Amino acid sequence: MRTFIIKANKAHTKADFKLKDLPGTSGRIDLLCRVLNSAFLLSHGFRKNVRVWLSLYGPPNPPKAIRFEGQGMKPKTLNPDELSTAKLIIKALKVGENLREPSKEIQVLPGIYVSNLTFEDIIRRTLKGATLYYLHEEGRPIERVNFSQNVAFVLGDHEGLTPEDEAFLSGIAEKVSIGRKSYLASHVVAYVNIFLDSITPPP
Amino acid sequence: MRTFIIKANKAHTKADFKLKDLPGTSGRIDLLCRVLNSAFLLSHGFRKNVRVWLSLYGPPNPPKAIRFEGQGMKPKTLNPDELSTAKLIIKALKVGENLREPSKEIQVLPGIYVSNLTFEDIIRRTLKGATLYYLHEEGRPIERVNFSQNVAFVLGDHEGLTPEDEAFLSGIAEKVSIGRKSYLASHVVAYVNIFLDSITPPP
Ligand SMILES: C[S@@+](CC[C@H](N)C(=O)[O-])C[C@H]1O[C@@H](n2cnc3c(N)ncnc32)[C@H](O)[C@@H]1O
Ligand SMILES: C[S@@+](CC[C@H](N)C(=O)[O-])C[C@H]1O[C@@H](n2cnc3c(N)ncnc32)[C@H](O)[C@@H]1O
Repeated sequence: MRTFIIKANKAHTKADFKLKDLPGTSGRIDLLCRVLNSAFLLSHGFRKNVRVWLSLYGPPNPPKAIRFEGQGMKPKTLNPDELSTAKLIIKALKVGENLREPSKEIQVLPGIYVSNLTFEDIIRRTLKGATLYYLHEEGRPIERVNFSQNVAFVLGDHEGLTPEDEAFLSGIAEKVSIGRKSYLASHVVAYVNIFLDSITPPP
Repeated sequence: MRTFIIKANKAHTKADFKLKDLPGTSGRIDLLCRVLNSAFLLSHGFRKNVRVWLSLYGPPNPPKAIRFEGQGMKPKTLNPDELSTAKLIIKALKVGENLREPSKEIQVLPGIYVSNLTFEDIIRRTLKGATLYYLHEEGRPIERVNFSQNVAFVLGDHEGLTPEDEAFLSGIAEKVSIGRKSYLASHVVAYVNIFLDSITPPP
């Protein structure tokens, strides 16, 4: 089982942006769409052993969390193109708009849930069942890590995690690197997935 | 220097499709946008040592070729989101619409060229300066290949190469694999780029 947690500090927490201009109006929801593509999609296939948490902290109602559960999702729900994925996120934000409870999750579609969970809530839940890693340029080279069967990876958005996020993770998540360059989050997720496929047995 | 050549057998050769529904109307130009993203973009950076050839064979005027030259492109020309990249492809198809010469390239924007070059033309040109590989699930594992400083990779679209394409490549391109699963073309390009970065000196 593989979990990817992406903290998107600018991503809008209400569907108040333009589908035609995601980079300019949504706090980079386009980036989250590409991360979902990399996390779940194979050529003519779908990774059921993946979970993705989007942890959104942009205006106007942070935090919002959207959980995508490979086990529960219908494979045809997620398509490769950015716009159709953005529509799923918009749908989740609309369903979650009047939610007040801090920890209740509402189902948006099979396998997709929206809530007001914080980044810290997500990390604490994840730690119960998986070993946590923080993907970072300066971490331990991925080929030297001994992965267990349940792994979870935290990534930042285009601006990376804040010092506060990093302070929270220190001591609970080992830093892991796929190289010394700084890559786009979606490329990192694609690389990690393909790398993990080569391990026997793959997580 | 790294070259990626993608043969898109269904991709429309005229800008007769809808930007709002690329997967349904363009013969999967959306896939080509994601390949360009993976080929060129770094976090806050741009790979100048990359060239991409899109070899389009869909209706109504095949073939069309669009060449993206990292050395010549302005880094701000290519943005991470799919729609802005689709607009570049549309622009190139419009510029190339009335082109009749079989081998003349017209500049669309700095570093971007459109032509009627065939897939075979592109391969022959590429062979003059680089070692050619065909990315394929059943090829030699990438970590066992001894890459030179000028490498070129051929990939298929969502349906893969045709038997005729494969026959043309046999004997001139070694098959290289990044794993036994079949991955999306954009994930393959992201993986290959990050893998090549780890070689000293990187191609
Ligand atoms: C676009 S990068 C963040 C950009 C960078 N931190 C900055 O602010 O310039 C998005 C995320 O991908 C992950 N990442 C990027 N390059 C990486 C690498 N070489 N190894 C591991 N993770 C990486 C990190 O989690 C990072 O926060
Ligand atoms: C979406 S796949 C093609 C799908 C597959 N051939 C089919 O028709 O079902 C797109 C391209 O990515 C490349 N590719 C996919 N998986 C690969 C792997 N494991 N190793 C190397 N290249 C791969 C191949 O060039 C392939 O044509």
